[in-house]
Amino acid sequence: MIEEERPCRGVVLVSGGMDSAVTAVIARSECRAVGFLHVRYGGLTQEREEGSFRALTARFAPAHHLVTDCPSLKAIGGSALTDASISVPEGDPDRAGIPVTYVPFRNAHFLSVAVSYAEVLHYDRIYIGAVEEDSSGYPDCRRIFYDAFEKAARLGTAPTESSLSIRTPVIHLSKADIVKEGVRLGVPFDLTWSCYRNGIRACGRCDSCALRLRGFFRASVPDPLEYEK
Amino acid sequence: MIEEERPCRGVVLVSGGMDSAVTAVIARSECRAVGFLHVRYGGLTQEREEGSFRALTARFAPAHHLVTDCPSLKAIGGSALTDASISVPEGDPDRAGIPVTYVPFRNAHFLSVAVSYAEVLHYDRIYIGAVEEDSSGYPDCRRIFYDAFEKAARLGTAPTESSLSIRTPVIHLSKADIVKEGVRLGVPFDLTWSCYRNGIRACGRCDSCALRLRGFFRASVPDPLEYEK
Repeated sequence: MIEEERPCRGVVLVSGGMDSAVTAVIARSECRAVGFLHVRYGGLTQEREEGSFRALTARFAPAHHLVTDCPSLKAIGGSALTDASISVPEGDPDRAGIPVTYVPFRNAHFLSVAVSYAEVLHYDRIYIGAVEEDSSGYPDCRRIFYDAFEKAARLGTAPTESSLSIRTPVIHLSKADIVKEGVRLGVPFDLTWSCYRNGIRACGRCDSCALRLRGFFRASVPDPLEYEK
Repeated sequence: MIEEERPCRGVVLVSGGMDSAVTAVIARSECRAVGFLHVRYGGLTQEREEGSFRALTARFAPAHHLVTDCPSLKAIGGSALTDASISVPEGDPDRAGIPVTYVPFRNAHFLSVAVSYAEVLHYDRIYIGAVEEDSSGYPDCRRIFYDAFEKAARLGTAPTESSLSIRTPVIHLSKADIVKEGVRLGVPFDLTWSCYRNGIRACGRCDSCALRLRGFFRASVPDPLEYEK
């Protein structure tokens, strides 16, 4: 693809999980330049996720990258991911309702950081690897939320040449289709981390492991991560 | 006002400035319970602002209060308030355009923290003392931005009994009218801090001091703060 066909520049929220890694590779294919952004928020697996972010940044060498902090989510609590007194449940990908791993309004914090970063870099796109279908039932993973936030971002920032847009390229994919797309694009799934628990190996039993494993199984692709036996 | 007429509970973003102090007193009059929230973001006058927050909290004894941090704004920079290499200009309240004291998309970060806090407390209102008219021309101080963010907040949080709303009771007031309203409500303006510079006394010359002083002058009310000569 020649340069002129890719005028956009994108900030990609890279948590270090498989969805954000696939999103990052899609963003690289769509944009002239990308910046990788990682927001630590005091979650149980913060070091593992940051390690995955740094490995992905080393692999893909984005034009900019930033690791920054959002301590308010842990200060506020209310989630099994930020409050050690609430335990992470065993995974059941088909359970209804909002699970205790939901971090209240977390993705709005991440988007706010990404929009500020994009505004200072003069970038015009935000990419986030949210998944609406086949996901954990988080309200801030739905496209209607991103549409509303995109409008707020356009109204709440300084006017720029082009309108800021929030891209969610995997939001309507199943986990199996995300795996297939990642394989097609050469995403290094071995560098990613999805588990909600902070073990030496992924636990294989929490919500996030359960969704990941089912995705690889349905895609008929072996998951390169090692799991606890 | 009897309890039944005030079923709502509100989180108030209290920076420690005069607009947020007036907003906090209005919120107290409208809600059954309030929580005061202060977000440090590494600005030049962080200690002064936090001191004002703590003085206002001691005076009004809200049901909850929280001081938390948003370090990403300083990590990203791009503003005279977060980047020491950009100097704070002398004030000209009638200057057009967005000034260098604009912190990119800052109020979205504050609102995100407030929405997470409200969700965990099961509160249904957010109050912020943004001022659209007679203000510094910041895009994230306009009511159209708050309307869009309110929609995003409703879509991005767990469903609750009542819809979350974002209240901006002083947004269409002039600074002079905010002073008059504050005097009527008994707001302790002596506890507030508005200056963008971190002097022993308020400088009296930055944008924020210029707007404050003009407001008190036009309201024919003496400002209880001491200013540098």
